[in-house]
Amino acid sequence: MVSEKEVLKKHKAKKGKIEIIGKMTIKTRKDLATYYTPGVAYVSEVIKKNKELAYEYTNKANTIAILADGTRILGLGNIGPEAGLPVMEGKALLFKKYGGVDAIPLCIGTTDEQEILRFIKNLAPSVAAINLEDIESPKVFRIIRDVSKAVEIPIFHDDQYGTAVVTLGALKNALKIAGKGKNVKILIFGAGSAGYGITKLLFVSGFKKLYVFDSVGVISRNRKRDMNEFKDEIAKITNPEQKEYTVEEAVKNADVLIGVSGVKGYFKKEWISSMNKRSIVFALTNPEPEISYNDAITAGAFIAATGKSDSPNQVNNIMAFPGIMRGLLEVRAKHIEMKMLEAAADAVAATLEGKISKTNIIPSAVDERISLKLALNLAVAIGTSAVRGDNARIKLTPSEIRKNAEQKIKHYHHIEDSLFR
Amino acid sequence: MVSEKEVLKKHKAKKGKIEIIGKMTIKTRKDLATYYTPGVAYVSEVIKKNKELAYEYTNKANTIAILADGTRILGLGNIGPEAGLPVMEGKALLFKKYGGVDAIPLCIGTTDEQEILRFIKNLAPSVAAINLEDIESPKVFRIIRDVSKAVEIPIFHDDQYGTAVVTLGALKNALKIAGKGKNVKILIFGAGSAGYGITKLLFVSGFKKLYVFDSVGVISRNRKRDMNEFKDEIAKITNPEQKEYTVEEAVKNADVLIGVSGVKGYFKKEWISSMNKRSIVFALTNPEPEISYNDAITAGAFIAATGKSDSPNQVNNIMAFPGIMRGLLEVRAKHIEMKMLEAAADAVAATLEGKISKTNIIPSAVDERISLKLALNLAVAIGTSAVRGDNARIKLTPSEIRKNAEQKIKHYHHIEDSLFR
Repeated sequence: MVSEKEVLKKHKAKKGKIEIIGKMTIKTRKDLATYYTPGVAYVSEVIKKNKELAYEYTNKANTIAILADGTRILGLGNIGPEAGLPVMEGKALLFKKYGGVDAIPLCIGTTDEQEILRFIKNLAPSVAAINLEDIESPKVFRIIRDVSKAVEIPIFHDDQYGTAVVTLGALKNALKIAGKGKNVKILIFGAGSAGYGITKLLFVSGFKKLYVFDSVGVISRNRKRDMNEFKDEIAKITNPEQKEYTVEEAVKNADVLIGVSGVKGYFKKEWISSMNKRSIVFALTNPEPEISYNDAITAGAFIAATGKSDSPNQVNNIMAFPGIMRGLLEVRAKHIEMKMLEAAADAVAATLEGKISKTNIIPSAVDERISLKLALNLAVAIGTSAVRGDNARIKLTPSEIRKNAEQKIKHYHHIEDSLFR
Repeated sequence: MVSEKEVLKKHKAKKGKIEIIGKMTIKTRKDLATYYTPGVAYVSEVIKKNKELAYEYTNKANTIAILADGTRILGLGNIGPEAGLPVMEGKALLFKKYGGVDAIPLCIGTTDEQEILRFIKNLAPSVAAINLEDIESPKVFRIIRDVSKAVEIPIFHDDQYGTAVVTLGALKNALKIAGKGKNVKILIFGAGSAGYGITKLLFVSGFKKLYVFDSVGVISRNRKRDMNEFKDEIAKITNPEQKEYTVEEAVKNADVLIGVSGVKGYFKKEWISSMNKRSIVFALTNPEPEISYNDAITAGAFIAATGKSDSPNQVNNIMAFPGIMRGLLEVRAKHIEMKMLEAAADAVAATLEGKISKTNIIPSAVDERISLKLALNLAVAIGTSAVRGDNARIKLTPSEIRKNAEQKIKHYHHIEDSLFR
């Protein structure tokens, strides 16, 4: 779709994808005295007395950091922090365009768990949330667990939460079309960030017949090889019989396959052929899926989806992270809980309203009207759920959240209209 | 000049002073594939092979962090990181407006020296320079010394370097008017960041009759009380006789007083009256100086200067830091050396050209034509000096530095024209 030459040329021409601007200009000595010294000291004094007021008087309330350590950039492995920058800048561009969020890309110079943990703690006073990105698991799970105890800002792990939200959202619509309920048998391939997040979210959403396969085989409480505390957690909520199955055994009478394995071409056509009727196949590994959309359909899938934009049903967290973060920021959320993500998945599913079909189970990322509608629905869902769960610093109503979120996203549309006409 | 009410109201209305925007927009699937996945992987692969290419393909080359730990915000003491945010955001606004620099304000959640050191090291891959701000000394001196060995990006300590540059620049013009040379006797009050930086820069610039007073008295090799390794360094290059003087003794036959003591009203009129003829008094403590401009002149100063904008000769690092940083970024400097700062001070002095007078020893901060001229002169001076000292990643000529710097600053003027008409 795009050539290496063109991509490199365009990146070099602009030297990156984001920049910082003022919200006002300085024209007079009075402006300088208002926005810098000596006037700014009044603002510092007010925040000194109550640090929560940083949310009112600075851009903290709309600022997040996108934090990566270079260990899992795209599908490229540990390529170092500098090589992660173009990806995180791209993500920052999308955060602003689709969510009105000011995101600072930070690819840091350590892969050490404790150093990352301290970095996040020390960063926290300047930001309203942190988006962890492309950090290897299970290290990243431990970081999230530990840092969430230390700071009261949401730590959003897009690889885990964002993927889980779009997957569950798309799955709900797919199941509706297939006429199936929550008692379906679901096989999840991959126990990294995406697999862990999807499994937990599906479980709290009421799906109980879950089976998770990693490179060693199906996860169960009886398995000894290659387990860790997070796979133990998966074992507790999946594989009800706690038996050892081969994929071939498990896939018979399965209703849903979800691939987040990281392995291109992992799904065999025979597996799909042996599934229950009206089967659903999500092959979500990027950039190349476990099976192509067409091959999945040919093999008998009733509904198929991939992460690719050139076939129907693109399930990609691009659709979710801007709106989710918009919602977290609007209510100044303290933490992220599974309930909030479940509400977000419902918002993804509901955004298509009466328009769902076998080839349209999830809203499209690029259409600007749809992306605005989706972002606002997500923001309201996440924000409202945070307020209900006592996880929000400010208790806004759904319509307040929608109005404020719309204002911020449209503010950036105005900037774009002025600069990129 | 500005009321607390107005300052707070204006800050609250905009919720801070800076935001992040894209350098391009996303309109089509192809745009998304170019600036995000899958195309961005080409850029990551190129940087993976040579991390220096992050300067070409990302915004790293124009990105700095403004790092503070909340311990010395303005004159307010240790008020915590959140209360530092409005100041650092204001500084980021000025960095962009006057220098075309993208500066990320980071007020971090630790005051521990080793943690700050690690934070800076881990931040380094994402930025081309770091501006340390309002961190207590001598801790900050040790951090700069140690971090400069660990990372190859300039660590700009504005309280030290920026203040030294504008002070030396203004002093050069003042001495010219007073008809004095480098053999003047200079008393410096304050041995914190500003005093330390000024003393070192004056010394390498050829001033040898320097006397530094801190709260205990004059610094000398014979003094035992309240010394540290940095005061030892000061002792080695000042107080040639290494005697213990009272201020009253030292001020007789002094030519220049420089106040960076942090103490309002510290300078007595009698001190100034007892100085040599054609005396020069810089009372630079903010927001209130060691003596007001008018009182200094009344007491007999030939030329006086303060940090205030409502009297002549405002000596304030606002004039220097945007241009200095512009120069560091243009040549992708590795470190900062005293020679580069000396060149910068010459640029400050020279920017006024034939227009200097007793009430006009330093260019004004707010006038947009002067600020552009000053920033470009500073950028060329710093950049050229870095190239000569083998401290630059790219060896540009002075005219290339000027052209590139002007392009970046005017780029932001165009953005301002589009957004704030």
